Amino acid sequence: MADLAKAGDTILLLSQDGKRFMIRLEVGKEFHSHRGKISHDALIDQPLGHRVISHLGHSFFALKPSAHDLIMHARRRTQIVYPKESGYILLKMNIVSGARVIEAGTGSGALTIALALGVSPGGRVYSYEERADMQALADRNLLQVRLREVVELKQRDIAQGFDETEVDALFLDVREPHQYLEQARRALKAGGFFGAVVPTTNQAAALLAGLEREAFVDVEVCEILLRPYKTVPQRLRPVDRMVAHTGYLLFARPIAGD
Amino acid sequence: MADLAKAGDTILLLSQDGKRFMIRLEVGKEFHSHRGKISHDALIDQPLGHRVISHLGHSFFALKPSAHDLIMHARRRTQIVYPKESGYILLKMNIVSGARVIEAGTGSGALTIALALGVSPGGRVYSYEERADMQALADRNLLQVRLREVVELKQRDIAQGFDETEVDALFLDVREPHQYLEQARRALKAGGFFGAVVPTTNQAAALLAGLEREAFVDVEVCEILLRPYKTVPQRLRPVDRMVAHTGYLLFARPIAGD
Amino acid sequence: MADLAKAGDTILLLSQDGKRFMIRLEVGKEFHSHRGKISHDALIDQPLGHRVISHLGHSFFALKPSAHDLIMHARRRTQIVYPKESGYILLKMNIVSGARVIEAGTGSGALTIALALGVSPGGRVYSYEERADMQALADRNLLQVRLREVVELKQRDIAQGFDETEVDALFLDVREPHQYLEQARRALKAGGFFGAVVPTTNQAAALLAGLEREAFVDVEVCEILLRPYKTVPQRLRPVDRMVAHTGYLLFARPIAGD
Amino acid sequence: MADLAKAGDTILLLSQDGKRFMIRLEVGKEFHSHRGKISHDALIDQPLGHRVISHLGHSFFALKPSAHDLIMHARRRTQIVYPKESGYILLKMNIVSGARVIEAGTGSGALTIALALGVSPGGRVYSYEERADMQALADRNLLQVRLREVVELKQRDIAQGFDETEVDALFLDVREPHQYLEQARRALKAGGFFGAVVPTTNQAAALLAGLEREAFVDVEVCEILLRPYKTVPQRLRPVDRMVAHTGYLLFARPIAGD
Repeated sequence: MADLAKAGDTILLLSQDGKRFMIRLEVGKEFHSHRGKISHDALIDQPLGHRVISHLGHSFFALKPSAHDLIMHARRRTQIVYPKESGYILLKMNIVSGARVIEAGTGSGALTIALALGVSPGGRVYSYEERADMQALADRNLLQVRLREVVELKQRDIAQGFDETEVDALFLDVREPHQYLEQARRALKAGGFFGAVVPTTNQAAALLAGLEREAFVDVEVCEILLRPYKTVPQRLRPVDRMVAHTGYLLFARPIAGD
Repeated sequence: MADLAKAGDTILLLSQDGKRFMIRLEVGKEFHSHRGKISHDALIDQPLGHRVISHLGHSFFALKPSAHDLIMHARRRTQIVYPKESGYILLKMNIVSGARVIEAGTGSGALTIALALGVSPGGRVYSYEERADMQALADRNLLQVRLREVVELKQRDIAQGFDETEVDALFLDVREPHQYLEQARRALKAGGFFGAVVPTTNQAAALLAGLEREAFVDVEVCEILLRPYKTVPQRLRPVDRMVAHTGYLLFARPIAGD
Repeated sequence: MADLAKAGDTILLLSQDGKRFMIRLEVGKEFHSHRGKISHDALIDQPLGHRVISHLGHSFFALKPSAHDLIMHARRRTQIVYPKESGYILLKMNIVSGARVIEAGTGSGALTIALALGVSPGGRVYSYEERADMQALADRNLLQVRLREVVELKQRDIAQGFDETEVDALFLDVREPHQYLEQARRALKAGGFFGAVVPTTNQAAALLAGLEREAFVDVEVCEILLRPYKTVPQRLRPVDRMVAHTGYLLFARPIAGD
Repeated sequence: MADLAKAGDTILLLSQDGKRFMIRLEVGKEFHSHRGKISHDALIDQPLGHRVISHLGHSFFALKPSAHDLIMHARRRTQIVYPKESGYILLKMNIVSGARVIEAGTGSGALTIALALGVSPGGRVYSYEERADMQALADRNLLQVRLREVVELKQRDIAQGFDETEVDALFLDVREPHQYLEQARRALKAGGFFGAVVPTTNQAAALLAGLEREAFVDVEVCEILLRPYKTVPQRLRPVDRMVAHTGYLLFARPIAGD
């Protein structure tokens, strides 16, 4: 059965020339762009995956957004963790259905979306953030993608520690992750999955030193580069410019009672 | 509660110097390595995340394997899709709990593991493979990681088409993916998620031409590079050599009735 | 002895915040920027490598430009060959003092500058270009950097062949380099150095097929990526965005009498 | 005129399947390989760029080596500076005919070869090395490629400073380059070209801090990646594995009298 677009759904409208619009369908509303208007009512209760025509005669494609779309189109006020990293984090930290995962800081909630999808159904994401405004933004982003109920948003300085214990995985995207390794260890299961992202080599080195000091094992550091290509078959080549850096990923496992 | 290792579980034994051993726990068996023996019975019904000592006095860490570990340690006789790609595929093709996904070919089953984790619980992976020996290998790999029941393995030349219709996503890892776009379109939902990986630029160009011809939209091509770093904090630097290439990833969406 | 700036020299003025200005010194002229004016007369016959102060009190550094600066600041109306590639080309194609080298097309003359520096003194660059306007631009760029006399600029469709024979090296930066391999072979010494740059994989594949057909040996293809870092010591990290692609480099050697 | 191979020349013998042999031609000697013997006398005074046949009937191509070949085939006992970096260094540090350049340490002499080619004729490379055995190796490598007379090899701990002053460029490939910035500044012209290569991010950060402290300007850090491709036109793709890292390049200019 084709997916039907429902009122309240967020869908992706893709213009013929590749512009992407994420819109939340509401009865009686209209989508406006340079390529014309489309009434939401013409989309609601209709199958996705079809062409729709604006009042100016331009084609759009109404599509179900992917997890990638949801993450990339979340409103952001911070550097986010991109899908090239969050997809890898899911597999590396075993973020599977039913898992209990801590994340700090919440930021705009981009990684939170990926984690919430990964632990669904049956799992839970505990997401810590110090700043109220960021938390409010993430709250809204999670509501928008209907993952809000999977996540507990907590406003807290994590220096005070985490409420949860025996979590399966814990990910730090904070300025000085090496300062919170004791707190992380207390929250994680023995042998749980620890991960972090840091933008600078200095932070990566400091975190590595901390992981060594705290006797984490299976320590790994990497960076992931995504290089997009132009899609003209007769002229296949990478695009001119790409993201050169988002961050260094670190992974490790705490060992009990050492 | 700490995870307990059970008989029949596959666990990761990590030596102090970073060697990784995946072993399936069986009552009465022994693990052997250059660093000494460990009786499986000393591990069964014990919490994971602990240090164990071999009869030669060497330390090992008994850990729950991650999805990444399961994928990388699956027995292989083919080039596999690595976690750096499969994690991205999960988000890009919306492989979430409950999804119905077709994959061809099965190969060693490395991507199958990632897809099966992604659709669990409630979803299903239909994995097509022409060669009986490859299918048998994938069968064994899926059993080993306890994902066999999520997957239907089918031995078939996909030129004949797929049995399923209205699937959410379909991924091709076959020699000439551009030859199977009609079959893919018939199996996929309108607006479903199509993906493929090809090793050469010539295949990527041929597939792009096919996607254009078949009026798929939202076409993207990329490659993903993972660059590992050495983990010495005082001497942080990339490793000397890395994987330069696994493949080009292509993504697209079929549109109904065009 | 410190380098003295002379009237007619092109020098690099570097502002305190890293803006780069290439100026040609002329008696009585003034340099203008947001950070104030500097009279050329205050620079002429003065040692380079010194700080100069604008009339608004801002610091600038007067420096001798490097070959890299000359190439990057040449006026351009085309995609140029960047120093990350041209430096490699110099070593790979043995562009040393005294060498005779053919290049086509001239384009904006960026690679011409690198080649002219490489063959100096005693060598010669024969640079072919079909378009008069591009040739005029390159002419001006070469004059500006005082390498004009090393280069013979020729306006010509290279399908008609090259005037020179027995050249040491020949580099093609044209749309369809695989169409000119016979002409290249006739111009090159037996065992000479052939090179080319192409933006697309399709062109690279076509050129490889041509080189195979024409029995060139020692064929190599590569791409070179330069990843710049931010220079804050406490926050060392790559820049946010980088050039993802300039082109594929191909190298080969023609064999006599096969 | 075709290049003639002379007794005493180093030439490149390339086998049909791409194996590379650098040999020094001597009257009466023989080249031996799995693919058969070739008498040096059959090569001496013959034109290069021709096919030669071994006594087992296998084809070889006799070629003039490029600067790239000379660098890569120099005997080494250390990590060397590769052509992907040394080519860029030549342009970035304005290593042109007539330039006077200091290098430390000499190591195996791979960068020394590139610098010597760059400054020829009329220039000079002053190359410092603490270890006598390394110096002897570089001595031999430079003799082999006939660049020995362009280079002054000095055995010295550079903490004592350099003998030369007012050099155009100075490059450090030593363990702790940040400790020698005062010495470098005293040897360099005002506004001269300073460069260094370091393998780790920690050293790069320390050197950046030193350059800031010593008021060098125009500071840049980058890394250069070379990705080789397989050369089959119907299956164009990168090789499986590549060099992931050689080092971070740093460049800067000292300013007089600040």
